[in-house]
Amino acid sequence: MPVWILRLGHRLPRDERISTHCGLVARAFGSEGIIFSGQEDKGLLESIQRITNKWGGLFEVRYEKNWKNVIKNFKSQGYYTVLLTMYGINLPDIIDKVRKKVNLLVIVGSEKVPGDVYGLCDAQVAVGNQPHSEIAALAIFLDRYFKGECLNKEFSGKIKVMPQLKGKKIINST
Amino acid sequence: MPVWILRLGHRLPRDERISTHCGLVARAFGSEGIIFSGQEDKGLLESIQRITNKWGGLFEVRYEKNWKNVIKNFKSQGYYTVLLTMYGINLPDIIDKVRKKVNLLVIVGSEKVPGDVYGLCDAQVAVGNQPHSEIAALAIFLDRYFKGECLNKEFSGKIKVMPQLKGKKIINST
Repeated sequence: MPVWILRLGHRLPRDERISTHCGLVARAFGSEGIIFSGQEDKGLLESIQRITNKWGGLFEVRYEKNWKNVIKNFKSQGYYTVLLTMYGINLPDIIDKVRKKVNLLVIVGSEKVPGDVYGLCDAQVAVGNQPHSEIAALAIFLDRYFKGECLNKEFSGKIKVMPQLKGKKIINST
Repeated sequence: MPVWILRLGHRLPRDERISTHCGLVARAFGSEGIIFSGQEDKGLLESIQRITNKWGGLFEVRYEKNWKNVIKNFKSQGYYTVLLTMYGINLPDIIDKVRKKVNLLVIVGSEKVPGDVYGLCDAQVAVGNQPHSEIAALAIFLDRYFKGECLNKEFSGKIKVMPQLKGKKIINST
């Protein structure tokens, strides 16, 4: 069940941290990779790549200027395309249908989502119909889509946390 | 099961949007309110209050300079205090224990969490032991804590989304 993420409309400097969080969530919760569109930002790609190099796992991160082509290309490869938006069908009412699709492209917007995307995507999914956060929406979507298994994914990185009730413990294998 | 959120170490302008997202997630996913610490930021409180006024529900948002006192006060009222951190016990391994507590204070840090907080809180909970986002951690924690019911919460606001597979539909009762 490969899942890819497309983050639309990245703006500098406004979205630097929000987009970084989207990328880290995409990685931590089991997607194959994230594609950023909007303004090009090498620092954004590098910071997520650095985390991947250190913390492990296979995760791809790249920039594409033409997000419409990204959606069309994924669709032509049989991917089902889902736009996360508070205006969509609430997650509990559609997740079973979405989970039946083999390949998935999950699209997350920034503050202004271009109108064209509504016509291009196969379905709109809301993580609740209240305003909150594209980071939260992506995280809960992936958590529910993978039925919670993403929290136990093994990354085999150079660095690893040993879970503690109090304090910090890290194993560094470099 | 009242749940309160404490967001530590807000910095201006760096955390403006991240803290706003924390506040909106706290509201959308069923907590009673959020307390911000760090730098005082009236615009942050007002923006979350504006959303609450428009979209409905009871949700409190306030600023407290002394976060240690906040934790101590909640503890003295019988609240169990949980710090969300990637160094903690992974959520699936501790959520049943946490859910048995009647009142909960969930603490989310910013980039640098002050060392003292580790000693003050009752438990550290990790939403997976990988680096990602305090917004994502808070969202998934609340989603799992409330067993997914938060996505169907009724807010009875002036404005309401009518979920659509494509496009936007909003009912405005003002």
